[in-house]
Amino acid sequence: MALALSLGRRGRGRTWPNPAVGCVIVRDGRIVGRGWTAPGGRPHAEPQALAQAGAAARGATAYVSLEPCAHHGQTPPCSEALIDAGIARVVAPLKDSDPRVAGQGFAMLRAAGVSVTTGVMADEAGHDHAGFFLRTEQGRPFVTLKLASSLDGRIATATGESQWITGPDARRMVHAMRACHDAVMVGGGTARADDPSLTVRDIGTTHQPVRVVVSRRLDLPLMSRLALTARDVPLWLAHGPDADPALHEAWTGIGARLIACDLSGRQLDIASVLRALGDQGLTRVLCEGGGALAASLLAADLVDELVIFSAGMALGAEGLPSIGAMGLARLGEAPRFERVETRAVGADILHRWRRI
Amino acid sequence: MALALSLGRRGRGRTWPNPAVGCVIVRDGRIVGRGWTAPGGRPHAEPQALAQAGAAARGATAYVSLEPCAHHGQTPPCSEALIDAGIARVVAPLKDSDPRVAGQGFAMLRAAGVSVTTGVMADEAGHDHAGFFLRTEQGRPFVTLKLASSLDGRIATATGESQWITGPDARRMVHAMRACHDAVMVGGGTARADDPSLTVRDIGTTHQPVRVVVSRRLDLPLMSRLALTARDVPLWLAHGPDADPALHEAWTGIGARLIACDLSGRQLDIASVLRALGDQGLTRVLCEGGGALAASLLAADLVDELVIFSAGMALGAEGLPSIGAMGLARLGEAPRFERVETRAVGADILHRWRRI
Repeated sequence: MALALSLGRRGRGRTWPNPAVGCVIVRDGRIVGRGWTAPGGRPHAEPQALAQAGAAARGATAYVSLEPCAHHGQTPPCSEALIDAGIARVVAPLKDSDPRVAGQGFAMLRAAGVSVTTGVMADEAGHDHAGFFLRTEQGRPFVTLKLASSLDGRIATATGESQWITGPDARRMVHAMRACHDAVMVGGGTARADDPSLTVRDIGTTHQPVRVVVSRRLDLPLMSRLALTARDVPLWLAHGPDADPALHEAWTGIGARLIACDLSGRQLDIASVLRALGDQGLTRVLCEGGGALAASLLAADLVDELVIFSAGMALGAEGLPSIGAMGLARLGEAPRFERVETRAVGADILHRWRRI
Repeated sequence: MALALSLGRRGRGRTWPNPAVGCVIVRDGRIVGRGWTAPGGRPHAEPQALAQAGAAARGATAYVSLEPCAHHGQTPPCSEALIDAGIARVVAPLKDSDPRVAGQGFAMLRAAGVSVTTGVMADEAGHDHAGFFLRTEQGRPFVTLKLASSLDGRIATATGESQWITGPDARRMVHAMRACHDAVMVGGGTARADDPSLTVRDIGTTHQPVRVVVSRRLDLPLMSRLALTARDVPLWLAHGPDADPALHEAWTGIGARLIACDLSGRQLDIASVLRALGDQGLTRVLCEGGGALAASLLAADLVDELVIFSAGMALGAEGLPSIGAMGLARLGEAPRFERVETRAVGADILHRWRRI
């Protein structure tokens, strides 16, 4: 099952709106087939593993990192394929949360006489598929918030200088993080200040996640790196109902996808933004700041995982804060996270936290 | 030598103004004597180890974590004691930086026919004795800055609520850190806001470091925990030349030691404060904030080690910053630190950094 989960993770960031599933077929103690959901979400993991196994699938055990599907979508149901191939036993951690599956895959298998074992490594699978589950159950993607700051939580000097606080190893790791998310998201302030490209570079992959900028008024520079590459790598702009129609047209004209969201007071309603991204099919979003967007996500309790790179330097209170004003009145209201990991990355440290 | 260093560390925080030294005497592969500098700095490590060894010291090797002293102070020189006991070989990492010793201990041993080996574990010893060396060479103590903050570097909410951001394990570790420093130091703002006692508690030791409060005007509450315990645990107040004489008298009256320091602009000159503490004999000072004092120390490049406890919570930009305004104009001016350690402490993380 650990191998099936690991194979499944190969597809993360590329299979949306489908889950990234892995499948291992074992016959007489030997692995005879392996597969994982292909980019774009099809073919699924199971038919690929079955194709590798061929006749060896008969009487074999299939380890699948999520319940095999039971519905006729754009591919025939995987449960049917497993039955047809003569699989004797299916081991899977969890039920699929998609209402079109939700236990029917297991039921179909059992009805055909296939032995089904569930619950194996369910926690790990739950985390791996958290984005897919959140989208089907709550309509929003899983949100990872990445911050790269000084030891006192500053992301730039008072004059806005921010390159580079963390070192090359941390930056390379950020590219790897981008590659396993469906989308990278920043606020308008960061897009204006840093002119980022938000692409995945220097890690030997050609896959590019969607780039999302959250900007109520669409007042972003049209000569920016994001704008100039909008036809090469998807660029989505989440904007408010009061954005200038001329800007709307200009951004559409250069190839961006415009996504209208609701306001909450004078700001974009971040829950509405995430629901809109879920509607578009995204299951895993990496937010890279800035401070205002990070603060809205945290204040709305919409951060599922926090990944912080801390560099060995102090910038002092005039520096730009990694998390903007959150409006907390009391310590008890602060969003809390549970430690997952802490380790060295080049000269910096990485610490990873998950919502409690 | 590792054992001698480790024995020496038992004395840290208690031997000032003397160094905390360890000594192990080995004869025919067996340890026949161990000693470390006693509280108050006397007796030294060597005579205690020699007393344990007795006649077995003849022809033995003495591992000492610093050059044995050569001058007649309040105790006879340890080099003489080693020679008299018939020690055949002395192994030590480093020369003593005290001008009264500075190589004369090694010279005295060699002149008496004792074989001397130096340089063994010199880096480790250099770090262990860093406070003693800094005081003899630069006239100031080693400074450890401890910060306990949220993930975004905040030490309290906007309303000043700060108990508790980090958990019980981190707090217990702070008490252990206090115990191995000669003094604990805070700024006047923290003394007013938190009413701390700054004592070592709950870790099974009765030793208490000196408590230092840096307060230009001495405008600290006379009914505070610090004031009420000033006769039980040393309380030193570093103040400016313009402190109110009546307050000076009041604090002296309740048992505090008053230390006049220079101003730099409108603030106490932090370098002058540290020199004054060095003059009083302190070799290792633990600064526990607040943000203003931390910022002055960092801006003056006077922080030798930074120990940060980060709790899994976000407080947002209204929160009180762990490091106050530093007046940095460019990223290149930021004080930089090298990672020593990062690990989990209860639900929090600890990261330790050393000046580059």
